[in-house]
Amino acid sequence: MARPSRWNEIVDAAAMLFREKGFVATSLEDIAREVGMYKGSLYHYIKSKEDLLFAVVREPAERILNELRELSALDLPPAEKIRRVTRSHVRVLEENFTYCSVYLEEVAGRHRSDEWSAMDREYVAAIVRVIEEGQERGEFGKSLDARTTTLALIGSLNWLTHWYRPDGELKGAEIADRYCDIFLVGMLSRTPTTDR
Amino acid sequence: MARPSRWNEIVDAAAMLFREKGFVATSLEDIAREVGMYKGSLYHYIKSKEDLLFAVVREPAERILNELRELSALDLPPAEKIRRVTRSHVRVLEENFTYCSVYLEEVAGRHRSDEWSAMDREYVAAIVRVIEEGQERGEFGKSLDARTTTLALIGSLNWLTHWYRPDGELKGAEIADRYCDIFLVGMLSRTPTTDR
Repeated sequence: MARPSRWNEIVDAAAMLFREKGFVATSLEDIAREVGMYKGSLYHYIKSKEDLLFAVVREPAERILNELRELSALDLPPAEKIRRVTRSHVRVLEENFTYCSVYLEEVAGRHRSDEWSAMDREYVAAIVRVIEEGQERGEFGKSLDARTTTLALIGSLNWLTHWYRPDGELKGAEIADRYCDIFLVGMLSRTPTTDR
Repeated sequence: MARPSRWNEIVDAAAMLFREKGFVATSLEDIAREVGMYKGSLYHYIKSKEDLLFAVVREPAERILNELRELSALDLPPAEKIRRVTRSHVRVLEENFTYCSVYLEEVAGRHRSDEWSAMDREYVAAIVRVIEEGQERGEFGKSLDARTTTLALIGSLNWLTHWYRPDGELKGAEIADRYCDIFLVGMLSRTPTTDR
């Protein structure tokens, strides 16, 4: 489908409205009004509101997944991979805050399509593999459940949309480093006598 | 306001619809239809849809906060407090899964009212104090940022609504214990040579 010149403006407006009102409560009329065109003209760009949702969330979702794919292939200590995936996740989220928020509110875990569910699953599976690799190398604790740990990490990262503000004082890179310290090192003081 | 006999049924229907369609997209007509009454009759029970939202989320939200208040007052090691608050959070969430999901999707962090924002803030502040207490006692690492750690923990717990299934094999108590191990002990193997 042709994407004439107002495409980016329409996607931005849709992202903002999906974020503020939710996908279901936003109508194509709302989006048309926001960009100052007739609803009928929107159909030159899209077939349905669903097309706009996927246009909003595709770029950041694919970027976050591609960065993890590249990272997984590198020969790095698993802890360093966890650090990098955390930084990448937070950075994409920070740079595309509204779009990512829409993804997390409206797409993640909602089984809107096989394609999106497959992306969610691949993301979880790749982090599970990093953790299992760390356990095999003796770098990570053997008693960890890799899947629960992955979901705890992803959950705390995704929950950022509930409290992080792009114009706030705390920057994404700093949050990512603090999260890594918590997940890798844990809250308990590390002393020579505390073995796992 | 009088709460005649169909009150519980109405609140259950509202919770289910808010969860499935979202608060904004659910109409009072939808709720009336679900329980088989006229929309006008709903006004014997409520003044607005907002009343129903708060009826849905008040009980679990107050329970989770009250359990934390009681726990905070106990004389227990901070790590044990973190363990108990995690268990309590997961248990309330498990026992009131639909209602809590509505709270997390529609109320948490959305500043719907001063009262609810105050409850969110009190919950965060109480966990921050437990962590600071742990740092003062030397039980938790000094370099932790207590607020970021609190938000990471709450985030990973709240994200459960995206993947936990009440009828699944993994029970809440087990998830809570795994999460505690991750947050307290961390992913890295604890060896005598790895000091913080």
